Amino acid sequence: MVTIAVDAMGGDKAPAPEVEGAIHAALEFGHRIILVGDRDEIHHSLKSHSSASTLPIEVLHATERITMEDHAAKAARSKKGSSMHTCARLVADGKADGFLSAGNTGACMAIAKMVLGKVPGVDRPALSGVFPSHKGSPVVVVDVGANVDCEPAMLAQFGLMGQIYSRLVLKVKHPRVGLLSIGEEEHKGNMLTREVTPLLKDLGFDFIGNVEGRDLFSGNADVIVCDGFVGNVALKVAEGLAEMMGRMLRESLTASVSGKIGYALSRSAFRDFRKRVDYSEIGGAPLLGVKGVCIICHGRSDSNAIKNAIRVAAEFASSNMNQRIEEELREFAQAD
Amino acid sequence: MVTIAVDAMGGDKAPAPEVEGAIHAALEFGHRIILVGDRDEIHHSLKSHSSASTLPIEVLHATERITMEDHAAKAARSKKGSSMHTCARLVADGKADGFLSAGNTGACMAIAKMVLGKVPGVDRPALSGVFPSHKGSPVVVVDVGANVDCEPAMLAQFGLMGQIYSRLVLKVKHPRVGLLSIGEEEHKGNMLTREVTPLLKDLGFDFIGNVEGRDLFSGNADVIVCDGFVGNVALKVAEGLAEMMGRMLRESLTASVSGKIGYALSRSAFRDFRKRVDYSEIGGAPLLGVKGVCIICHGRSDSNAIKNAIRVAAEFASSNMNQRIEEELREFAQAD
Repeated sequence: MVTIAVDAMGGDKAPAPEVEGAIHAALEFGHRIILVGDRDEIHHSLKSHSSASTLPIEVLHATERITMEDHAAKAARSKKGSSMHTCARLVADGKADGFLSAGNTGACMAIAKMVLGKVPGVDRPALSGVFPSHKGSPVVVVDVGANVDCEPAMLAQFGLMGQIYSRLVLKVKHPRVGLLSIGEEEHKGNMLTREVTPLLKDLGFDFIGNVEGRDLFSGNADVIVCDGFVGNVALKVAEGLAEMMGRMLRESLTASVSGKIGYALSRSAFRDFRKRVDYSEIGGAPLLGVKGVCIICHGRSDSNAIKNAIRVAAEFASSNMNQRIEEELREFAQAD
Repeated sequence: MVTIAVDAMGGDKAPAPEVEGAIHAALEFGHRIILVGDRDEIHHSLKSHSSASTLPIEVLHATERITMEDHAAKAARSKKGSSMHTCARLVADGKADGFLSAGNTGACMAIAKMVLGKVPGVDRPALSGVFPSHKGSPVVVVDVGANVDCEPAMLAQFGLMGQIYSRLVLKVKHPRVGLLSIGEEEHKGNMLTREVTPLLKDLGFDFIGNVEGRDLFSGNADVIVCDGFVGNVALKVAEGLAEMMGRMLRESLTASVSGKIGYALSRSAFRDFRKRVDYSEIGGAPLLGVKGVCIICHGRSDSNAIKNAIRVAAEFASSNMNQRIEEELREFAQAD
């Protein structure tokens, strides 16, 4: 049985979505969950779910919590009794197979790197965003915020880790890896993309060259490599636009009587649509390159997002992802 | 009367959308239009519009055309008889107040810089994208692709030009200028954003600090400053997501009978929605910092997008935008 530690104090509305997500994950997938955080608050949330007591869910008390306002590096060093630290230690000690948090992303990355350490050969762990694509299988974008001002060699490693993740966890047979740039031709890009291109060509996977911003959703690439600054901007542009379009669509539809009736009649179609573009169905961003499994969720994650992040954490933990990263990096270093 | 030169051979389906857009612009706004390109093809398109002969539309023959496949800098130097060159020369010679093209963006920028020259004091002309925002007034993003690998001083100039555009052309009274980064706090960003922050603070306009990708649509800032690589990725992420969401929504709605009926009943609401998020309503990307007016349109621009780009070109030409850029840059240089 896979055991996942959940930081119950992470998200904006913690611990309610974390507790409910854990219950659904335990019910649907049969995973064992350790909810970490303020014992009283967690038990209070658990009480409103009658099925909870029969499920493989444990509560582990943590005295501190890291907030969104905390300075990432400082909190990582000083708040060692936090729910986030405790989760990471459960993984480091082999008591959990992976952990997830919807809390302060910077602090979570710092703690994961500090407590879990890096997979041998990895220079910089990278946060990968997973985007819904029109063609069905999700697109992995590495890095979406762990590393800004990247060296070319770092991006090459992001590509390697991303394609292993796509293959082993998302089950894409032959992932196509693209480099995020501003035109398909090789010369179109900036200094970084031009320097990283020969490195990516050398790595032995299916490197398809430059891709553009729209390919985050086109399905033309399975893995998209970029600097963490660019990737984070891209991620947040997508979130912002999806939110604005959803809101404007609702406003337009509810502004007239015929629109309202139409909206009511198409309710299930809208639900289907939302499900297809909804990030919460995809379940959090894996931090690739740390020993163990760490999934970082959006602060606004609802119980569905938490449930799916638990599913992803378990799939990641059941793959031999980190071993493959180590092996492929070693092969690459030897071939060099 | 404002005269706008239109590169009739630019877009993917040229010259039909260019000709139709010109007719609508002449009808609606009363501007004088010079359609530049292959005389026969343009006249063939004009013939299908009975009203065309009564409108202030002229045709100017150009022997060459620049294609999307042309190398930007090479085409700019060698195809001097192209419709794009001819348009730029009409502006440089004072025979038109501005020009627009839906052709090869790189070539168009190169030609505009070469033929029109730069506004005194401007280091690098910048392409600005204009995004629809939830709050109504559009958001100007500078740069969206003219300059990659930017120096901090270049971004400061982008901010200055962007806020003048927002004020004089988009009629925003006190534009708030934000710096695109990966967190609102000043220390969150990369080397470039940290170096440009003190420069932007010094420019005397309303600099609101870092903004994030989602602020392209939030309306929290009126002008967003970024490196052209990041801006181009952001623009294309937005295009790609809008396209995917539109397609998925249609698919979901037409998959069931009740969805289809709902869709039919809400047709006008959907039209309203599309109009609010549609880039073609906004009308092209102005190249800021060149002497004269150059608007660059998407290759897939339809006649509505061309019409609106003509409107924007005329509004730009009627403002004293370039003079203000020169004056404000001079003030800034003297204060330094």
